[in-house]
Amino acid sequence: MSETRKTKFPRESFVSMTELVLPNDTNTFNNLMGGRLMHWMDIVSAIAAQKHSNRHVVTASVDNISFKHPIRLGNVVTLRARVTRAFQSSMEVRIDVDAEDIPAAHKFESNAAYFTFVALDNEGKPTDVPAVVAETPEEAEYYEGALRRRQLRLILAGRMKPSEAAELRSIFDIKES
Amino acid sequence: MSETRKTKFPRESFVSMTELVLPNDTNTFNNLMGGRLMHWMDIVSAIAAQKHSNRHVVTASVDNISFKHPIRLGNVVTLRARVTRAFQSSMEVRIDVDAEDIPAAHKFESNAAYFTFVALDNEGKPTDVPAVVAETPEEAEYYEGALRRRQLRLILAGRMKPSEAAELRSIFDIKES
Amino acid sequence: MSETRKTKFPRESFVSMTELVLPNDTNTFNNLMGGRLMHWMDIVSAIAAQKHSNRHVVTASVDNISFKHPIRLGNVVTLRARVTRAFQSSMEVRIDVDAEDIPAAHKFESNAAYFTFVALDNEGKPTDVPAVVAETPEEAEYYEGALRRRQLRLILAGRMKPSEAAELRSIFDIKES
Amino acid sequence: MSETRKTKFPRESFVSMTELVLPNDTNTFNNLMGGRLMHWMDIVSAIAAQKHSNRHVVTASVDNISFKHPIRLGNVVTLRARVTRAFQSSMEVRIDVDAEDIPAAHKFESNAAYFTFVALDNEGKPTDVPAVVAETPEEAEYYEGALRRRQLRLILAGRMKPSEAAELRSIFDIKES
Amino acid sequence: MSETRKTKFPRESFVSMTELVLPNDTNTFNNLMGGRLMHWMDIVSAIAAQKHSNRHVVTASVDNISFKHPIRLGNVVTLRARVTRAFQSSMEVRIDVDAEDIPAAHKFESNAAYFTFVALDNEGKPTDVPAVVAETPEEAEYYEGALRRRQLRLILAGRMKPSEAAELRSIFDIKES
Amino acid sequence: MSETRKTKFPRESFVSMTELVLPNDTNTFNNLMGGRLMHWMDIVSAIAAQKHSNRHVVTASVDNISFKHPIRLGNVVTLRARVTRAFQSSMEVRIDVDAEDIPAAHKFESNAAYFTFVALDNEGKPTDVPAVVAETPEEAEYYEGALRRRQLRLILAGRMKPSEAAELRSIFDIKES
Repeated sequence: MSETRKTKFPRESFVSMTELVLPNDTNTFNNLMGGRLMHWMDIVSAIAAQKHSNRHVVTASVDNISFKHPIRLGNVVTLRARVTRAFQSSMEVRIDVDAEDIPAAHKFESNAAYFTFVALDNEGKPTDVPAVVAETPEEAEYYEGALRRRQLRLILAGRMKPSEAAELRSIFDIKES
Repeated sequence: MSETRKTKFPRESFVSMTELVLPNDTNTFNNLMGGRLMHWMDIVSAIAAQKHSNRHVVTASVDNISFKHPIRLGNVVTLRARVTRAFQSSMEVRIDVDAEDIPAAHKFESNAAYFTFVALDNEGKPTDVPAVVAETPEEAEYYEGALRRRQLRLILAGRMKPSEAAELRSIFDIKES
Repeated sequence: MSETRKTKFPRESFVSMTELVLPNDTNTFNNLMGGRLMHWMDIVSAIAAQKHSNRHVVTASVDNISFKHPIRLGNVVTLRARVTRAFQSSMEVRIDVDAEDIPAAHKFESNAAYFTFVALDNEGKPTDVPAVVAETPEEAEYYEGALRRRQLRLILAGRMKPSEAAELRSIFDIKES
Repeated sequence: MSETRKTKFPRESFVSMTELVLPNDTNTFNNLMGGRLMHWMDIVSAIAAQKHSNRHVVTASVDNISFKHPIRLGNVVTLRARVTRAFQSSMEVRIDVDAEDIPAAHKFESNAAYFTFVALDNEGKPTDVPAVVAETPEEAEYYEGALRRRQLRLILAGRMKPSEAAELRSIFDIKES
Repeated sequence: MSETRKTKFPRESFVSMTELVLPNDTNTFNNLMGGRLMHWMDIVSAIAAQKHSNRHVVTASVDNISFKHPIRLGNVVTLRARVTRAFQSSMEVRIDVDAEDIPAAHKFESNAAYFTFVALDNEGKPTDVPAVVAETPEEAEYYEGALRRRQLRLILAGRMKPSEAAELRSIFDIKES
Repeated sequence: MSETRKTKFPRESFVSMTELVLPNDTNTFNNLMGGRLMHWMDIVSAIAAQKHSNRHVVTASVDNISFKHPIRLGNVVTLRARVTRAFQSSMEVRIDVDAEDIPAAHKFESNAAYFTFVALDNEGKPTDVPAVVAETPEEAEYYEGALRRRQLRLILAGRMKPSEAAELRSIFDIKES
């Protein structure tokens, strides 16, 4: 990448989205279905990737997501997304999800997820995107971890050999042999 | 688990679901949005987990999914799900997705994904589920890989140390030191 | 039709579709509304007709459908469709519907229906479709009955005189006078 | 039925419903899908049956429907329903459908259909409904034809022998032998 | 406007729309959400404006609406719309809403609202519409009040000074000074 | 109201909601339908009213809304809501709407609206809510204007005589006579 590559801060791609859990979003226990939450995650993170790149974007991958706490019918779900790091034409977006039972004044962290998007030009071809410049310690941590998560994605997609994943190997506390 | 634990074959939980891609499922390029596909994946795999356990189930986690080939407006999407392996009260489900442009006689593999579900009793507490007995070589491969994927999930959720993940370490070709 | 008309087996157009009954699909008794079930029937049978003809298709008619057993909120509905017989540019599709309360291990036949579709070329004009070759006794029975059902459709649409409906008259045990 | 059975006129159950054809209601030719139209037919006719009986109702059957003229994206669809005849606890409803391209000032009859409903009491058991008293020649014609259509429904459902269907046989111009 | 301007009666733009309140239309008290009702009001009044103008139309404004009586899950909502008065290229539509709990034989007026639409030609430019000729005393009253409501709209949109709103001032019983 | 009435700042009820305009949200010109936007406005402002009151709320009224600039298919719509003033059991919420064509880097103010909600206790009865304390000049302006808008609402609903609306009369530059 040239020195003159455009840059953006994570806050420039920040998006907040609020959804009310309606009957059709829930299963027989009146809990929000995971698939509906992922649908919302996809929309909010696609908007963040659009804001970072000023391009149309397509979802390239979704990292492992775990669903810990049930979200209930009538809860208000808040999704906050921002781009953590950009590669050539792809961007990693982190989504943080909170849920709240407002009349009960009960708010809780639901979960977090990473989605990856590719920016496309008007012919639908991948196109370069600005680099990300982290401003806060938290953003710096997300930025740094993005490389590790990318290697895991490439290995899981069969496009990188585990032996080449230097960053990722570090989380397994493995010395270079 | 006692010796008398009930068992089921993957084919007993098999579910096939077919969806037609409608305008509201697509982005500005007329491609199926990733979030909508994940919504369908969640429903078809929840049904497979229900069939295996004869219980209500909730989504516990989703493994890394990558979206390689765009699926278009008017395409027919086929999702096939089956339980690959059961743990105490949780089940891993593999979903294979095909897409087809029928008038063009063009059919292609879209992608595959693993979702994990927990079976709940009528009070909403986790409850034991039958073990899985693989019948085909493919099912045996999915069954075996399930342990590795489970360790990765636990590590990513911060509930297992990488050094304890014996199965997973094997994919990094790392000798026990 | 010429001797070289292309042929297909019913299993080549077979489609299976699975739907979960959600709150918005139900009436005040928490039973699946007939209109929603017909909407699903239309989609699954249109896909079967597409697979048989490799053409875009439009719904031409729906035969008498009766709704015997209520399907409940949370039930899993399975629709299986296949083309039973083709005429010049039209195809009859039979749809069999099952419903299942999986946690209660209760599965039951809901009903069956016949939808007719017309294949269209790219200009939207009716176009010839392959003939159907029945392989099983059941398929042979559906194939044979298709002529009788077609005559009934034509009479009900005012396009055939009852006196001309030789096949149909047979179900009334009427001798040719 | 006793002499004191309550009666109602068809106009007392009359319902008119207007729908705008939106993108998700259409197929790849931008024509309204048959299944969506049947969904609307089911809702409007259920309301007519509710108005006649002042009861909750469930769809019992749908008669043969043919779809002649394509209805387009952006068209306005008008459905008019009224009860034509009541039996013990069931009611036949006739639905007339028009479609209109308003900016083009083009209005056309789409089709007509007959749906049958059963009235339920608060325990969900079938319950008696008022008789219908036709007021206009058209209503009288629908009232009279209802018996014939009912016999056809019973025969098609395997609940009446064709030889017993006196009314229906008349449309085949068959003399009692 | 020239003497030869085309005219129409309010009954020529009359539209009646019936909706059944389904689970996803309701809040946690099982009452119809105001936003859903406004969505229906917008559709029915847009159709009325289309019928008056035989043009595509866009919503220009909505007057103050108050929601007095809760409408319940399972209720049948009837919306009746007609154009009350036309200005150059804009039309005011009055919508009257009733709701009914049919099994309980309880029907009540919900509310009324005024929406304003602009007619567009095929290039999307505002275009002249026929004048309205009131036929009944009620229509005359709506016609007359339309001028007052229009002045209020213009003042609230900052496009007219209150001192110029002669018609509107009359409702404040203010003498011209 | 007692001196010890609880108070809240507008920022405590602030909610931001982001929506992507999908095909089914648009009319034949590919513009967002006014009714869909009002549906979103109702949800976001209901959440703001819930946050202010920690109660379930119902929509009581909507003030005049004008739609100036068309919002297009694929645009991102941002709705920001906060409570401007509380009365006994009712709250006025202001919603500001922006729309953005992100790939074209074109962002514009769409419009603003005022919705009023009533807080309900668990029996569904109106219940007192905290007072609002404005912190910024803008909030102070909204707070002050709320009284005038309330008088207009009461007059339009026929519940206040124009002659009693002291605050509102001021916008007509009318001296007390």
